[in-house]
Amino acid sequence: MNITAVIMAGGKGERFWPKSRTNLPKQFLNISGNKSMLQQTITRLERLIDIARIFIVTNELYAELIHAQIPHLPLDNIIIEPIGRNTAPCVGLASILIEERFPDSTMVVLPSDHIIKNDSEFIQILKTAVQVSTQGDNLVTLGISPNYPETGYGYIESTGEVQEINSMEVHRVSRFVEKPDLATAKRYLDSGNFYWNSGIFVWRTSVIRQYIQQLMPEMHDVLETMKAALNFQEQHEVIANEFPKMPDQSIDYGIMEKVDQIYVIPCVFGWDDVGSWTALDRIDEHDENGNVIRGNILNMDTKRCIIESNNGKLIATLGIEDLIVVDTDDVTLICTKDKAQEIKKLLKELRVQKLDQYL
Amino acid sequence: MNITAVIMAGGKGERFWPKSRTNLPKQFLNISGNKSMLQQTITRLERLIDIARIFIVTNELYAELIHAQIPHLPLDNIIIEPIGRNTAPCVGLASILIEERFPDSTMVVLPSDHIIKNDSEFIQILKTAVQVSTQGDNLVTLGISPNYPETGYGYIESTGEVQEINSMEVHRVSRFVEKPDLATAKRYLDSGNFYWNSGIFVWRTSVIRQYIQQLMPEMHDVLETMKAALNFQEQHEVIANEFPKMPDQSIDYGIMEKVDQIYVIPCVFGWDDVGSWTALDRIDEHDENGNVIRGNILNMDTKRCIIESNNGKLIATLGIEDLIVVDTDDVTLICTKDKAQEIKKLLKELRVQKLDQYL
Repeated sequence: MNITAVIMAGGKGERFWPKSRTNLPKQFLNISGNKSMLQQTITRLERLIDIARIFIVTNELYAELIHAQIPHLPLDNIIIEPIGRNTAPCVGLASILIEERFPDSTMVVLPSDHIIKNDSEFIQILKTAVQVSTQGDNLVTLGISPNYPETGYGYIESTGEVQEINSMEVHRVSRFVEKPDLATAKRYLDSGNFYWNSGIFVWRTSVIRQYIQQLMPEMHDVLETMKAALNFQEQHEVIANEFPKMPDQSIDYGIMEKVDQIYVIPCVFGWDDVGSWTALDRIDEHDENGNVIRGNILNMDTKRCIIESNNGKLIATLGIEDLIVVDTDDVTLICTKDKAQEIKKLLKELRVQKLDQYL
Repeated sequence: MNITAVIMAGGKGERFWPKSRTNLPKQFLNISGNKSMLQQTITRLERLIDIARIFIVTNELYAELIHAQIPHLPLDNIIIEPIGRNTAPCVGLASILIEERFPDSTMVVLPSDHIIKNDSEFIQILKTAVQVSTQGDNLVTLGISPNYPETGYGYIESTGEVQEINSMEVHRVSRFVEKPDLATAKRYLDSGNFYWNSGIFVWRTSVIRQYIQQLMPEMHDVLETMKAALNFQEQHEVIANEFPKMPDQSIDYGIMEKVDQIYVIPCVFGWDDVGSWTALDRIDEHDENGNVIRGNILNMDTKRCIIESNNGKLIATLGIEDLIVVDTDDVTLICTKDKAQEIKKLLKELRVQKLDQYL
């Protein structure tokens, strides 16, 4: 199969502060297991795709880190975005570069910072997705079968039209919907027709380029200008000049929500977007009091806490409940679980106070 | 005036862990201000008593620390208890040593780890107490006028019989009572006849020795044996052998509760026994959210917390309430305020786990 992969690894991943830092975002951390999430993503993909055909889109800041973490990845496969944009420009840029190197390939587009527990299952689904992508002008996405009414994810609704390929259900997509409120999320869960949007997409480069031409014509023009400069001396300069002209839009909003020929494959391979520290409650083992404990910890009368010591220091807790405690060399964070999504507020304040050394 | 002082500085002060350690108990810490509580106690006393007449009773472990913190204190004035005992043996040993060096003096006995805010007021009261101690066989104690129904202190009840000396009320004591429950403490507060037992006592050495002879005759015999050995080569050996024979009793229980001729001087000089981390709520300034903050702290949505960073590290808090957070070089403690009295449980567990380096 003529497959390539594009891993999006330009995110700042601030919600894992203080373990994540400006120069070390979430995707480069060992959140679960002893490899970084990017390394785990690469290892997973390599079961199907040769490293020479795996690309990572990121920004200048993280190029060295990627090289250090994935030394066997060809340097040419690190695609640098001149500035941070949403996923549509990222996919667009990757598509013209891959078209050039691996014509007519099927691209797997995926985030660098999600957890997938069952790699074999993931690979089987990917194979089916690639097969579906080779028919007509199909776009394929992986949908996570929800097991609770999460309000933090977008959802994908299926029409109910199902075909079976390789003993797998492939559903025709009815629509993409934004993050719902709790009542709506409960309705989605009950209906059985909704899936979490994993942000993992599979399509032929030629097909996604064709949809971009049709639905995002201005972005298409920019991409054509860049494409014309590929393999010329001015390539980097042209990309640097043209890239910022593309809209700050997601591929979901720009393309997926507007296309008819979309299929979703329901997945149960143990997925998590690891959106904040509370994700550890879903990913990790708990002690008998519901705590997730990592490192040198002494806890008494402590319940439902997430406690991590990253530097050998002893964290001693007494009487606390529902807290996140993270100790690093220069920062100790203590935060209630219900504020885990607001850690960015602290970073904003650090910027205001010009305490950039802690960012 | 022929005055001497005995500062009791042998306590372990574990409730300020992890700032207090086995080799650095509470009295040697800067809990409030930039001097240790022992140093503050010495400075306060020196307004009335020459350093040559101030004695510190402690154990072997802390002798060097005392010398380092109070370099101008004569080494002979550090009295080493062979083993840790309660206050009666401590007072007994000090009384025979002081009798020898400063005959007929009035001894001020006081803890090393309490805070007194108004030093001048304290000195004025001490002068009056000394004056009262020179009459008859009087024992004198300083009683703190309570401003809330504390259940963690012992109380002293006055008979209502009052005399005025140096424009100060001196009350005849009716009885010493142990720590009350809340209802009783409220009753004490309302009655106006009760004072907190400060543990500060003033008496002539000859008078306390006489009461010991009368009320603790076995301890008196031990003291006589020690006294006979003073200034002989075997002095240290005799004290080491005899000291453990004295009962593990407080001077309150052994003497004060049984003597008739006791006077209490009510004090309002800003006293605190600094019994645990929550004492900082009484001693220190609060921010607009009721937090006591020391060191490099960034707090948001944080209420009524006590947060101390002792090593320059940033402590960032978000959403937390009513917690104690203390960061030292090798330990971070996070404890609810209502468990502040139970910090010893953590130390006990560290001992069980043989993690003595953190004690």
